[in-house]
Amino acid sequence: MAAIDPRQHPDLIERAAHSLAPQTVQRLREAWTPSSKVVRFAGSPLALDGGSRLETFQVAYETWGELNADKSNAVLVCHALTGDQYVVGENPVTKKPGWWETLIGPGQPIDTRRFYVICANILGGCMGTTGPASINPATGMPYGLGFPVITIGDMVEAQVRLIDHLGIDQLFAVIGGSMGGMQVLEWCARHKQRVFSAMPIATAPRHSSQNIAFHEVGRQAVMADPDWARGDYHGNGKVPRNGLAVARMAAHITYLSEQALHEKFGRNLQNREARTFSFDADFQVESYLRHQGSTFVDRFDANSYLYITRAMDYFDLAAENGDVLANAFRGTRTRFCVVSFTSDWLYPTRDSREIVQALNAVAANVSFVEIESNKGHDAFLLEEPEFFATITGFVNAAAAHRGLQ
Amino acid sequence: MAAIDPRQHPDLIERAAHSLAPQTVQRLREAWTPSSKVVRFAGSPLALDGGSRLETFQVAYETWGELNADKSNAVLVCHALTGDQYVVGENPVTKKPGWWETLIGPGQPIDTRRFYVICANILGGCMGTTGPASINPATGMPYGLGFPVITIGDMVEAQVRLIDHLGIDQLFAVIGGSMGGMQVLEWCARHKQRVFSAMPIATAPRHSSQNIAFHEVGRQAVMADPDWARGDYHGNGKVPRNGLAVARMAAHITYLSEQALHEKFGRNLQNREARTFSFDADFQVESYLRHQGSTFVDRFDANSYLYITRAMDYFDLAAENGDVLANAFRGTRTRFCVVSFTSDWLYPTRDSREIVQALNAVAANVSFVEIESNKGHDAFLLEEPEFFATITGFVNAAAAHRGLQ
Repeated sequence: MAAIDPRQHPDLIERAAHSLAPQTVQRLREAWTPSSKVVRFAGSPLALDGGSRLETFQVAYETWGELNADKSNAVLVCHALTGDQYVVGENPVTKKPGWWETLIGPGQPIDTRRFYVICANILGGCMGTTGPASINPATGMPYGLGFPVITIGDMVEAQVRLIDHLGIDQLFAVIGGSMGGMQVLEWCARHKQRVFSAMPIATAPRHSSQNIAFHEVGRQAVMADPDWARGDYHGNGKVPRNGLAVARMAAHITYLSEQALHEKFGRNLQNREARTFSFDADFQVESYLRHQGSTFVDRFDANSYLYITRAMDYFDLAAENGDVLANAFRGTRTRFCVVSFTSDWLYPTRDSREIVQALNAVAANVSFVEIESNKGHDAFLLEEPEFFATITGFVNAAAAHRGLQ
Repeated sequence: MAAIDPRQHPDLIERAAHSLAPQTVQRLREAWTPSSKVVRFAGSPLALDGGSRLETFQVAYETWGELNADKSNAVLVCHALTGDQYVVGENPVTKKPGWWETLIGPGQPIDTRRFYVICANILGGCMGTTGPASINPATGMPYGLGFPVITIGDMVEAQVRLIDHLGIDQLFAVIGGSMGGMQVLEWCARHKQRVFSAMPIATAPRHSSQNIAFHEVGRQAVMADPDWARGDYHGNGKVPRNGLAVARMAAHITYLSEQALHEKFGRNLQNREARTFSFDADFQVESYLRHQGSTFVDRFDANSYLYITRAMDYFDLAAENGDVLANAFRGTRTRFCVVSFTSDWLYPTRDSREIVQALNAVAANVSFVEIESNKGHDAFLLEEPEFFATITGFVNAAAAHRGLQ
């Protein structure tokens, strides 16, 4: 089961290498032939919630630690919107450390000396799992808008194939923050027997009106960029830099709290004594946001951004279960740890509380912790000792219950 | 004192009429020859905070009611970012009612049978007062980025010229919401003797880091649009529609509360039974936002949007007064009514409280009301009986104090 070979498409690589930044070229290579492990599924199509199906697809993933003899120590990590499988260790595109090394690794709350940790790039992503940047076998060119619109449930079904492939019957734990938490919830709703414990972090049982609104702004920004070319930019050796950067800037504001921005930047000027009376980035916060936009474009695919935000907008676990959220969890034996952060205004604590209430309604085993933090939504990725202590405690108790060393 | 005559520029009008929507052409005509009253100042340059000066400029304004014999019943209304002088009565571009008819008019809390109400389009605006869409006398073409970057203080100084021109020594009241409130504060700080009473509504003594961030996203969206052409779009018979629409969409989210969006739209679908699994505006909130973006472009100038947001970012009344906000008000005899709304997250109540604390520190006459509302920042423009009662009570008491009938 080999990855799709981009050497069949030398023209694309050549065009990209000529006109794009080296990091962007590397990112395109990762979409086609990931540096990570990869498994290709053919002969057993993936039926999608939207009604269409993917005849062939691949899932790129990484693992850490060792699977024990009875395959009972596997932890699946579900990543957020712009995350990837590089949870621990250097990212091949950004060359930065893994995105959740604060929580996962040897000696960390989720200890890779004890657990077999798996993380897969999501369906629709751009780091090696099939998505809009992948080669469409029907055309020999990147899917672009030819890729079907997918859901959080579809992402989970692709992960299920991977877990089957690895021969794991039941995951010891599934954990994820933000959109990762939505996947955790779908796992628990759709595959109750296969999840021993679950940690949905800083997430919600549905995407709110305000969150749909912010996503729509981002999509319109991408689509307004002429270089987007209705999604067919790969063939042009271009990427919609400006549009995607604006989308990222808008989204990035929602990941931080007002207080975090105030404490980090306030109204401080950027390397200057006084206002310049121009449209330069006078303020540090402007300079910071521009940087966030610009570096994001180097590491992420614009069409993936459209598809993944759409999947999040469509997420509504109650609607999928007869408009009663508790139905999603009826009969569950999974142990839950729900975590929210006080200053998270993207997925505020009341969203987590709804999950907890639904779990309580079916007498599920659930603990709920609201962590005091001023860091906003991104707190789950940052240094938060109380959060780490919560996860450590929950994981140790669940492991004892499961009879793990 | 006549307005700048666009008949000197038939080519611009012709090009616009050929390629732009009729409403946009009308809007350009308003920028050059407003339907409202207009006064042109020449021979006495306006010195700007940024160090440059405008040798000639014009101020477009409207008035309602009659100025009394001793000119003591004048109320100046300061408009917000995208407002204009059409407070009451049909707007010549949108053909919609005036933007503050809920508060101002015959029999309203600010009763035009009793007061002489004045509202001027702000400096930098696009409805007839000099701004980036105005003709630069040095080139005979619209200023574009040749217009100097201005401040809230500069807007106030242009209004001062108008009030001088009208022969009014002291305004009975200055009122404004949002950026209008910033102008109210500048009037009170810079021209203490000329303001008998002041109503800064849903505003702040400085623009926060988060608010600068949102503005920067909007500006980058405009500037990313190739039709913006570095501000020189007028000569091309184009406007940066897509970029400005995205800017407006992002900003519009900040004008509403999460709860207002939830109650108004929730996750309701737009004229369809089910999700379409596409990037169409499936959700009502998407459709609503797209509409907001699109109609805004027809009525507003993209460069004005850049300049006015910049002026707001630069606003910091404490910084202008030795870093002590109270200094701005030292010696004031103005009567203040400060109003905030509970669900306003753009200018939350704590911003108003800062103003009140500074006023208290100089023993000013101030009343402060936080109005319970779930409508977000836009509440000040909407039907809010408690707000109307507050303004009515304050205005009546101030009028009695001033000896007005």
